[in-house]
Amino acid sequence: MKNKVSLIAPEIKEIMAMDDRAEKLREVFLDFHPHDIFLLCEALDPEDIAEIVMALGRPLGIEFFQEFEIKDQRRIYKYFPKNWMGRVLEEMAPDERVDFIKALPRGRMEEILPLVAQAERNDIRNLIQYKEGTAGAVLTTEYAALSPDITVKQAIEKLKLQAFDRETIYYAYVVDASRRLIGFVSLKDLILAESSKLVQNVMHTNVISVDIDESEEQVATKLSDYDLLAIPVVDKNETLVGIVTYDDVMDIIVQEDTEDIYKYGAAGDYIDYMGSKPITIARERITWLMVLVVMGFVSGWIMEKYAFQLEAVVALVFFIPLLCDSGGNAGTQSSTVIIRGLATGEIEIKDVFKVLRKELATGIIVGLSMGFLAAVRAIILNRSLRLAVTVSLAMIATVLIATTLGGILPLLFKKLKLDPALMSGPFITSVVDIVSLFAYLNIAMLMFR
Amino acid sequence: MKNKVSLIAPEIKEIMAMDDRAEKLREVFLDFHPHDIFLLCEALDPEDIAEIVMALGRPLGIEFFQEFEIKDQRRIYKYFPKNWMGRVLEEMAPDERVDFIKALPRGRMEEILPLVAQAERNDIRNLIQYKEGTAGAVLTTEYAALSPDITVKQAIEKLKLQAFDRETIYYAYVVDASRRLIGFVSLKDLILAESSKLVQNVMHTNVISVDIDESEEQVATKLSDYDLLAIPVVDKNETLVGIVTYDDVMDIIVQEDTEDIYKYGAAGDYIDYMGSKPITIARERITWLMVLVVMGFVSGWIMEKYAFQLEAVVALVFFIPLLCDSGGNAGTQSSTVIIRGLATGEIEIKDVFKVLRKELATGIIVGLSMGFLAAVRAIILNRSLRLAVTVSLAMIATVLIATTLGGILPLLFKKLKLDPALMSGPFITSVVDIVSLFAYLNIAMLMFR
Repeated sequence: MKNKVSLIAPEIKEIMAMDDRAEKLREVFLDFHPHDIFLLCEALDPEDIAEIVMALGRPLGIEFFQEFEIKDQRRIYKYFPKNWMGRVLEEMAPDERVDFIKALPRGRMEEILPLVAQAERNDIRNLIQYKEGTAGAVLTTEYAALSPDITVKQAIEKLKLQAFDRETIYYAYVVDASRRLIGFVSLKDLILAESSKLVQNVMHTNVISVDIDESEEQVATKLSDYDLLAIPVVDKNETLVGIVTYDDVMDIIVQEDTEDIYKYGAAGDYIDYMGSKPITIARERITWLMVLVVMGFVSGWIMEKYAFQLEAVVALVFFIPLLCDSGGNAGTQSSTVIIRGLATGEIEIKDVFKVLRKELATGIIVGLSMGFLAAVRAIILNRSLRLAVTVSLAMIATVLIATTLGGILPLLFKKLKLDPALMSGPFITSVVDIVSLFAYLNIAMLMFR
Repeated sequence: MKNKVSLIAPEIKEIMAMDDRAEKLREVFLDFHPHDIFLLCEALDPEDIAEIVMALGRPLGIEFFQEFEIKDQRRIYKYFPKNWMGRVLEEMAPDERVDFIKALPRGRMEEILPLVAQAERNDIRNLIQYKEGTAGAVLTTEYAALSPDITVKQAIEKLKLQAFDRETIYYAYVVDASRRLIGFVSLKDLILAESSKLVQNVMHTNVISVDIDESEEQVATKLSDYDLLAIPVVDKNETLVGIVTYDDVMDIIVQEDTEDIYKYGAAGDYIDYMGSKPITIARERITWLMVLVVMGFVSGWIMEKYAFQLEAVVALVFFIPLLCDSGGNAGTQSSTVIIRGLATGEIEIKDVFKVLRKELATGIIVGLSMGFLAAVRAIILNRSLRLAVTVSLAMIATVLIATTLGGILPLLFKKLKLDPALMSGPFITSVVDIVSLFAYLNIAMLMFR
């Protein structure tokens, strides 16, 4: 059963060569999940894929089409005849459809929209206006809605009628005549309730909802905190605009984490790597690199001020990369833990003093160990106790500064309503370098006076 | 409506002071979501929370109890009278219950288990044996099951009976007499089907399932690829053991990303930061730090070999932190993008040559820009064209090496079936340091001969 996909794989190409392939495709894919059809067919030519979409029709063909990424959808879309271009858009889920349209060049959009029926065209024009990253940009308008004054029996009948083209009928939203959201019932509530009762008497009035301009991150947090299948989105007047479902929230969580991870690596904004040219990739990365180069100038400048010291005891130089790297690594560890903790809600701004204590204590423990190791190296290879003491003191100071800054700066940024992820490894490393070089060279001055 | 929580907040303490508080609590929280009760009561004493759990009873009180983290659950649990200790465990969701039990010290577990009814005790003993991180360790046994030979009408009646204590009744699994998984129907399928049809005639036979020893990561990927509400878990004989629901998968995704992010920051394994002592935190972090210190010794050793050169032209030293940091940053950017791409499936091993080309080209673009900036600094502040050429060539070489290694090493690790996340920023930085110092000092030898 589980291997249905691999069993059928070789057949597809054969089928595509037949005359009655449309019929054959329908027959073979009858009980297939759209994702399985995708796995089987993603390597085919866009032209063949378009044909499969049309052969399978609604809803399976459309669901199969929606499995592709937008750039692939565009490649396939070109092969639809004109009447299908409108039809495919009409049948797509409203949120998927808007994402597809948004990715089109302006002129192409104007060409395609007239092919789409009035109702869907209005829906597109409505949804396209919401800002990227907000609830409005991820909602779907295909939700199940009920009036408060019908019976449970009527409600179930109504949901049956809506079942075909709604994202889910397990959650239904109760709206008044002006579409204000006044309650919520699950299908489970309905089938367990007495069928003669009115919806308004079985619905929950304490509805968890989000505002249309809330961030998609807040949408995700709320849906997952309340373990919901879907969350309704309302405008300023409490009018129901749409819903966001759990599967879209999963995509949001993955996408948000990817964006955060890019910030940890100072890698710029997320872009489609495999589909981007090096110049585009370089453009995303170069800003941070240049900022960090300029910060690196400060390290150089500090060393120039102590050039006489470095010239006098050249062995001091050998430990500079070690000290800088160790500080960078210790700081990266701390900032990683704190930034992620802030993102998941495990750590809050009010914990600042606890974090400070923890990072200071941790810094002392790891700093002492690392200082000891560096001292051993200085004694064995450089045969200088004075150097060993200098290096180990500098190491302890560096690591202590690093863990403390790595722990506190993200919290400070959060407090200032800036993104704490900006205080990630590469930035902390550059800051720590400056402070630790200064500490090292001053300790050296004292020791080698 | 949305502010119900904040409106009621001040009342709770008043209620807890009343004689008839149990009744009052039931009245106030009647239509509340357990997460809202949690938000309202999490700051109360464990003793009061235990009382609220008991007052609200089953299922709301238990759901409220399950909102707490395990360490808080344990604090609250102590305040239950003996008969409630068994009852709470019996009523908890099987997956939550096992997590709670696993966190108990061995002796305490032996004390509590006899308080629990036979059926649940067996369930606990079954689930506790599955290895952490597998499907077995995250599944729940409270799924809805149906026989193939009953009618749709009977099936719906059966689901109504099961509704109270099943994780979901929207998905029902069809099993034969020996509990082998043979099909699947959604509640939507059932209410849309003719009520006299047999379940076996409306069920899907192409069931997406996971094996009990598959990793929780694979469970998450499959459920989200197929947009499922829940995914069934089967053993070697295709017997249905349990299900994993979408809300648990969301927690898995967040947890997996956290673990990955810790690896990006070389911060060791994930531990509960706020609940851990500095010595525990330090223990997690120190291994990587020590490894990186030892790698740092190599940088020092390379410099020693070129000491005469550094003594002759001390200005060369001023650029060492800049070069090392720049290489580290560029390498961190590349490895971040590639490791995350591998995790989300956006990049695959077979893309290695494309990645190599992209990173080389990107490295040239950003390397030239950074080399130019470094040259400008050398000319302005050090007034040496020779130094400027040396530094800018070294910068270009460093950045090129960094982006290439940052791009390729994670792919190599993946190919070797090692965790690509080990090739993250801090490790790449140390490797690049060694290579780039070597390049820098050799270029300097040529230039200042």
